[in-house]
Amino acid sequence: MKSTGEATAINIGETKSASATTVATTKAIQHPKAGLKRGLAIFDFILRLSAIGAALAATTTMGTTDQTLPFFTQFFQFQASYDDLPAFSFFVIANAIASGYLFLSLPFSIVCIVRPHAMGARLLLVICDTVMVALTIAAAAAAAAIVYLAHNGNSNANWVAICQQFDDFCQSVSGAVVASFIAAVLFMLMIVLSAFSLRKH
Amino acid sequence: MKSTGEATAINIGETKSASATTVATTKAIQHPKAGLKRGLAIFDFILRLSAIGAALAATTTMGTTDQTLPFFTQFFQFQASYDDLPAFSFFVIANAIASGYLFLSLPFSIVCIVRPHAMGARLLLVICDTVMVALTIAAAAAAAAIVYLAHNGNSNANWVAICQQFDDFCQSVSGAVVASFIAAVLFMLMIVLSAFSLRKH
Repeated sequence: MKSTGEATAINIGETKSASATTVATTKAIQHPKAGLKRGLAIFDFILRLSAIGAALAATTTMGTTDQTLPFFTQFFQFQASYDDLPAFSFFVIANAIASGYLFLSLPFSIVCIVRPHAMGARLLLVICDTVMVALTIAAAAAAAAIVYLAHNGNSNANWVAICQQFDDFCQSVSGAVVASFIAAVLFMLMIVLSAFSLRKH
Repeated sequence: MKSTGEATAINIGETKSASATTVATTKAIQHPKAGLKRGLAIFDFILRLSAIGAALAATTTMGTTDQTLPFFTQFFQFQASYDDLPAFSFFVIANAIASGYLFLSLPFSIVCIVRPHAMGARLLLVICDTVMVALTIAAAAAAAAIVYLAHNGNSNANWVAICQQFDDFCQSVSGAVVASFIAAVLFMLMIVLSAFSLRKH
């Protein structure tokens, strides 16, 4: 009988129930599925780095795009930038928040790699990721609705397409929307990965 | 020595590690945290019922709203319905899909109540919920962007506000958007609850 706090599991009977038995031991002795969990955590870290790239690309592309048309009247110069449309402003803010969150979440992701069974960090990441996937998708969808309108217009509401004039602006904005959707999909993958990591074996 | 397939766990040492020890036994013997998990599963079921209400309300409100103005010209009658705007059509389709999915997910939620440790059903629900939260939020955000435009217009893009004429239509549509956002928040709560249920104690 050892006194180091080990739990000895004696399994008698069918082998099916044996696989469900979790032998909880002291930290020195590894869990049987720690390798799998560490792999998932490393993949999560890589996904986070990719999502930073996508979210930053979306933010900067949308934030820095503006187009001034080469002709102007006495009173007015035709110019388009992201802050002309509230949906695009929301897009920039939401993607900037997502980028910032992703940077701040990297240490927690590293904690999950070092300690694959740290459930607290993993749960915190799931909750924050869920909020962030909503924010990113909402920003991307709202901007996509406006970009679609800018490209095609709407005859029923008498809204004209502005992309005939501002073609460069529309192309940059469309790229930013695609980048934001990619970031959202990466967030969704992170949630699913975290769910697998949290699963009890 | 019994031959019914029970795993006997003998735990010696510190009580902290004892709480982490999962004693996997046959079905007859309950897990120590089964009550908490069952409570979470019942709450998940209630959330699903509420989300069905919200998603169905959003679908029907948006789908059945149309407004015909009392004046008309020789060639044109002024009418607004959801299929005039692609974002609203997407809204109806996405919320209908979410309602259908929620109905289909109820049996799986019941499985999670009856068997709180059935990880397969729980994982399936998390993955599908993540996809659905994206769909619902995207629909709500796209419709919200268009509703905002309909209310306020945009002078930079020369898009006029149409809600001065179609005020009843705009109010119904705004209500539908709010219902869809409520459904999305309920989905997010379900994901967080599932994450807590999946957590290993």
